[in-house]
Amino acid sequence: MTLKSFNAGSIIQKKRNSEVLTRDEINTLINAYTKDLVPDYQMSAFLMATYLNGLNKDEVAALTHAMLHSGRVLDLSDIPGKKVDKHSTGGVGDKLSLILAPIVASYDVPVPMISGRGLGHTGGTLDKMESIPGFTVDMSLKRYQQILAECKMVMAGQTEDIAPADKRLYALRDVTATVESIPLIAGSIMSKKLAEGIDALVLDVKFGSGAFMKTIEDAKKLAQTLVAIGEDFGKETVAYLTNMNQPLGYKIGNWLEVEEAVNSLRGDGPEDVMEVTHMLAGTMIMLGDKAESVSKGIEMSKEAVHNGQAFDKWLQLTEAQDGDTEVLKDFDQYPKAEYDIEYSAPESGYLSAIDAYKIGMASLELGAGRKVKEDDIDPTAGIVLKHKVGAKIKKDETLAVGYTNNKESKETVTDMLAEAFTLSDDKPDQPPMITHRVDSKGIQEI
Amino acid sequence: MTLKSFNAGSIIQKKRNSEVLTRDEINTLINAYTKDLVPDYQMSAFLMATYLNGLNKDEVAALTHAMLHSGRVLDLSDIPGKKVDKHSTGGVGDKLSLILAPIVASYDVPVPMISGRGLGHTGGTLDKMESIPGFTVDMSLKRYQQILAECKMVMAGQTEDIAPADKRLYALRDVTATVESIPLIAGSIMSKKLAEGIDALVLDVKFGSGAFMKTIEDAKKLAQTLVAIGEDFGKETVAYLTNMNQPLGYKIGNWLEVEEAVNSLRGDGPEDVMEVTHMLAGTMIMLGDKAESVSKGIEMSKEAVHNGQAFDKWLQLTEAQDGDTEVLKDFDQYPKAEYDIEYSAPESGYLSAIDAYKIGMASLELGAGRKVKEDDIDPTAGIVLKHKVGAKIKKDETLAVGYTNNKESKETVTDMLAEAFTLSDDKPDQPPMITHRVDSKGIQEI
Repeated sequence: MTLKSFNAGSIIQKKRNSEVLTRDEINTLINAYTKDLVPDYQMSAFLMATYLNGLNKDEVAALTHAMLHSGRVLDLSDIPGKKVDKHSTGGVGDKLSLILAPIVASYDVPVPMISGRGLGHTGGTLDKMESIPGFTVDMSLKRYQQILAECKMVMAGQTEDIAPADKRLYALRDVTATVESIPLIAGSIMSKKLAEGIDALVLDVKFGSGAFMKTIEDAKKLAQTLVAIGEDFGKETVAYLTNMNQPLGYKIGNWLEVEEAVNSLRGDGPEDVMEVTHMLAGTMIMLGDKAESVSKGIEMSKEAVHNGQAFDKWLQLTEAQDGDTEVLKDFDQYPKAEYDIEYSAPESGYLSAIDAYKIGMASLELGAGRKVKEDDIDPTAGIVLKHKVGAKIKKDETLAVGYTNNKESKETVTDMLAEAFTLSDDKPDQPPMITHRVDSKGIQEI
Repeated sequence: MTLKSFNAGSIIQKKRNSEVLTRDEINTLINAYTKDLVPDYQMSAFLMATYLNGLNKDEVAALTHAMLHSGRVLDLSDIPGKKVDKHSTGGVGDKLSLILAPIVASYDVPVPMISGRGLGHTGGTLDKMESIPGFTVDMSLKRYQQILAECKMVMAGQTEDIAPADKRLYALRDVTATVESIPLIAGSIMSKKLAEGIDALVLDVKFGSGAFMKTIEDAKKLAQTLVAIGEDFGKETVAYLTNMNQPLGYKIGNWLEVEEAVNSLRGDGPEDVMEVTHMLAGTMIMLGDKAESVSKGIEMSKEAVHNGQAFDKWLQLTEAQDGDTEVLKDFDQYPKAEYDIEYSAPESGYLSAIDAYKIGMASLELGAGRKVKEDDIDPTAGIVLKHKVGAKIKKDETLAVGYTNNKESKETVTDMLAEAFTLSDDKPDQPPMITHRVDSKGIQEI
């Protein structure tokens, strides 16, 4: 199909009628859209038809292919070793990338991580990195490759020429109620990750109140779609379904999460954070051909924390990206937020739920996130949980402390925190952190 | 809901989720769109969600209301009598408006007809009227009311200020594969008709190969939706389901249809044309309070043809709208198309089908219609059928003659005609012309 003879209306109509589109049709549509030959109003009708009628495995792969090739695809073949990255669908308190990347890189598995910024209730890896004084995530492609070669890892921001079609489509989806579509989400994630020039990928697909996928069923579908796309591109892809009903770890907010990540790298990480980190890192070490199995990889991951090589790697990277390493070794050198807001238990009982979404929204309100793209972030703002689900709490015991430089937020945030915590008489069940693994062989419970 | 606090995304999302929108939500959406506060790309996502998830009775009424009040609503209260109009969903060879309007007006029931132009395989009433030399359909509102008062009928083109929201939405639907939606079609039709300031309306909802509704089921749904909107606005509305599997009458094309309409007004109309005309006209006379029942109305309709009062009315209107009446009395004064294309039966047999859609497309190819809005129409072009379905045909007998000034169309049109006619050994069943009537009391077979 040539762009000249191309009729977007007939493609929209086919998808409207739940027909399957050919790879050529999808490719031509995305190409034409990128070249401004298809207007937004046609694309948004297509997006809604896709939202409601879905895309099959081949169609999603074709969409990903077209979005990927709308921009630059990095070639990292000069750097030896299998390049392995990790992507999370986003959660509250999710600082795992900051811990697992240095663990994996410390075994000479290159981790070419390109991340996004946070929007709404979930934080972004880039914002966390930039809370380290001096840390630079914007760099030339040459410097990106240099750092990756030297450190075996790099943490960079997405450039304009990575999957530009995805960027435009995402902006359009945002205003046309077509964001929460599993095939569209999967295509968006994979086009950006594949543009990094990776050989293999580990995915952390979260479900629960703090995740984009509220149910485990949707998370399964997304994981299966992501793995199918990875396979279609010949990249080994493993996805884990992990629980995001309460925040990960104790600290939520940019610098606060760096603190918790550093503590984790120094052997003092929260149990839930470390369980998921070791599973993901262990899988990445295995995919990078440095371990025979995931369980061997997990052992190596634990060892890298134990012997300090992961934290050393973290300091090496921070230096390479112009960050201040002193403050990582001594948190007291970091500025503190002016106000703190203590939230205490209104009654005694077991802490039976901490709503991750509400904690994320409260953290946003304190200044740790962006309501709209243009908002500035306060790196010192955030929330520290004093307890996690399952703890026995006495009346008036502190449950969480909010940190902020915005005095006005106090009342709102106190109300939000009151809604986030649930106390009950009975000890709650503790659901598993990691429930399923999805790979080319299918889905299995963990 | 104020326009300022308005969030189109949340409305799109509700319809995407198959939720029912409030009248206020629909009204605000259409208002905001008309004022350019909602961009086309949001509206097209809404249209696709509506196409796929539908609108209920209240939602369609609200949409119609919003589109109607996006422009001017005529006030014809100065003109005595119940104003009654007719609308057809469009067919091939459908010259019924030209016959029934003068019949009804001849009984002093005012018919304030505002019509559209043809696009694609169906002709438009305006184009037919304009094939009469001098006939003007563009006029001031004052003149429109004058003619209606004098002649009890008027045939005018839609002005820019009639339902402008519908005009913009229609253009958007055309390029986003959202035309064939029953609620959207119904809202579009009714907003334009209600803007005329009518008291009652008769609808001719066509089904079959030459109609927009291909199946009788879809035609029923459309008729029921149209009648429900009419009722919501307190206007008596009656719809008939009529057969459009073969063209109406024998002549297709603009001037050719004027000829057949004039012949019909002079008592020499084809059976199928007259059956539907009398039913619609009889109903209009009844709705205009000039007959106690439809059957009495039908008698009066026949009488108006028989005694010549309908043709006199036609001449009176033509004069009032600056048309040449001489040519209506003597067709030989009208220019002829340069070329004729005869199509003959390739074998003997019963004529078992004349595909109305294909005849419409062949007529378009000859120059009688528009492929795109900007095309000029050749008033002399068209097709004259020599036989209708059911006729016994001998090999090489002429089935149809095409008229055109475009010599190049000959080959294509011959191929198209070959596909339009089906001959068979067995005498075909003759389906009824009018199958159902829909009004406020429900649907009934005829």
